[in-house]
Amino acid sequence: MTDSIQTWAEKVLAGDRRAIARAISAVECGDSLGTELLKRLFSASGKAQVIGVTGSPGTGKSTLVEKLAGAYRAAGARVGIVAVDPTSPFSGGALLGDRIRMQSLASDKEIYIRSMATRGHLGGLAPTTHDVVAILDAAGCDVVLIETVGVGQDEVEVARLADATVLLLVPGMGDDVQTFKAGVMEIADLYVLNKTDLPGADLLAQEVEAMLSTASSRGDGWRPPIVKAIATTGWGLGEVKQALEQFRCFQEQSSGKEKRRRVYWRSRLLELLRQNLFEKVARERLGDDSLEKYVEDLLQHRVDPYSLVGRIVADSLGAGD
Amino acid sequence: MTDSIQTWAEKVLAGDRRAIARAISAVECGDSLGTELLKRLFSASGKAQVIGVTGSPGTGKSTLVEKLAGAYRAAGARVGIVAVDPTSPFSGGALLGDRIRMQSLASDKEIYIRSMATRGHLGGLAPTTHDVVAILDAAGCDVVLIETVGVGQDEVEVARLADATVLLLVPGMGDDVQTFKAGVMEIADLYVLNKTDLPGADLLAQEVEAMLSTASSRGDGWRPPIVKAIATTGWGLGEVKQALEQFRCFQEQSSGKEKRRRVYWRSRLLELLRQNLFEKVARERLGDDSLEKYVEDLLQHRVDPYSLVGRIVADSLGAGD
Repeated sequence: MTDSIQTWAEKVLAGDRRAIARAISAVECGDSLGTELLKRLFSASGKAQVIGVTGSPGTGKSTLVEKLAGAYRAAGARVGIVAVDPTSPFSGGALLGDRIRMQSLASDKEIYIRSMATRGHLGGLAPTTHDVVAILDAAGCDVVLIETVGVGQDEVEVARLADATVLLLVPGMGDDVQTFKAGVMEIADLYVLNKTDLPGADLLAQEVEAMLSTASSRGDGWRPPIVKAIATTGWGLGEVKQALEQFRCFQEQSSGKEKRRRVYWRSRLLELLRQNLFEKVARERLGDDSLEKYVEDLLQHRVDPYSLVGRIVADSLGAGD
Repeated sequence: MTDSIQTWAEKVLAGDRRAIARAISAVECGDSLGTELLKRLFSASGKAQVIGVTGSPGTGKSTLVEKLAGAYRAAGARVGIVAVDPTSPFSGGALLGDRIRMQSLASDKEIYIRSMATRGHLGGLAPTTHDVVAILDAAGCDVVLIETVGVGQDEVEVARLADATVLLLVPGMGDDVQTFKAGVMEIADLYVLNKTDLPGADLLAQEVEAMLSTASSRGDGWRPPIVKAIATTGWGLGEVKQALEQFRCFQEQSSGKEKRRRVYWRSRLLELLRQNLFEKVARERLGDDSLEKYVEDLLQHRVDPYSLVGRIVADSLGAGD
């Protein structure tokens, strides 16, 4: 650390790649310097268009993100990419962490790419993704693309963080319809049917059309478009970008963007409060010995968990109880 | 409410079905009576064998649970079943909630079946599943079977709650291997290859064998068996039950059960503390007006979320800060 926090923040704001990399690392390590930095960067954030790209494994998310980033770059935008990698919640090892991602973009200095591990966080989105996006946003990225591991319900968390959510589908994945039912369909602002050179593309398009036509209409009046693409060749990518632009205009005209960010901030504020309260109380009241003693009491059924937790909470919050 | 809490608790402990149903409903509603009841039931819980059954949609979890419950009943055990249904996190509607489940068991008074919705809880397990299992346990169930929606990472939460976890696999589901990688394979104490009359059963068995033989061995020294079954016909069910019994004996002899429950209680205690602290502070400090004012401040970038939350936490925990 040779820079003061203030100098460091200024370098991030100026788009200095090394300062950005160090900022993200500090945030990922849960370093208190990271938090200090985020406080200084916050007022400069909120300008980027944040686009979430989600879909089951094998639908081509990385490729779409890579090509989309290239298209935004070609239009003069500065682009940040956050790829959230699957991690085993037990072993803690990142599966894809060391692969070299998105080769075609590696030499472009106006694109910032960061891979993150999920570290067993149940939502799938790495807990610090919010902060990494805020850093890239403050550092001047016009567009931030978030690629998430498309397993289960993390799509919902992406949808909260992103201004627009793209759901990738490919023909012939039989279990998709069941995944949709778990709520994934409801979060998509844009459907990209990828790999439409595979058999079953028309059937898939019909199924999604049918599902959208029977779905209750969205509160905001937007009807999510369905775009066919073959991301590996770039076919259809122009239409994907155009549809995203249309949605952005729609959002800005209908104040949908503000509404969505309001929902996001409410949820983010409550989550941070939950987290910070807990961490402070755990640090102050659950030194290693006390925690093990409590666990032993529960294991032996000497005290029930509700009475025990009630007592710890009352002690922590003090007489104001 | 005609009974006192004490009378109600005694009826639950005596296995009274109406009292059990009312207890579970109270817990599901987040009723404070539910918590009072749980405090009284806790000392009688901890005796049941809790078995989690998980797997992707379409692997036959319901059928396996139904047949397994029948087999335990035939051996004289009292059985509780908790089926956790998928719910859309946005619409809140339970998809399978109203279907009539497990018809063959409906008339057996020694089997208690309860369907629950996940209500958007990210782990997939309904937040109150822990408490429902505790009620069935205290009410005298010898075995409690938990069937979970097999999407994403909720399997991990089941594995923490259960004494034994059964993972169902079926031949020909191409995406399974990728799901495994996300950590699901590591939580299984027993693999059941279901629908082995379908093509690809031998290949699947070989793949799982191969994966287990290359996996680093478990800390407890147990090598998860692989059992073939056709749950719809009951074929192989005896072997499944036998393997579960073997695992139970192994766990009891190796004190693995106690170790697992210690891990469970540590995680449960911390989760309850996190939850209760937050609820109390939110109630006392975030009356509707304050919350909306804070959200507005964040939306306008007048204050950064870390400084804001730091202030609320400091105010809540008082001068002991």
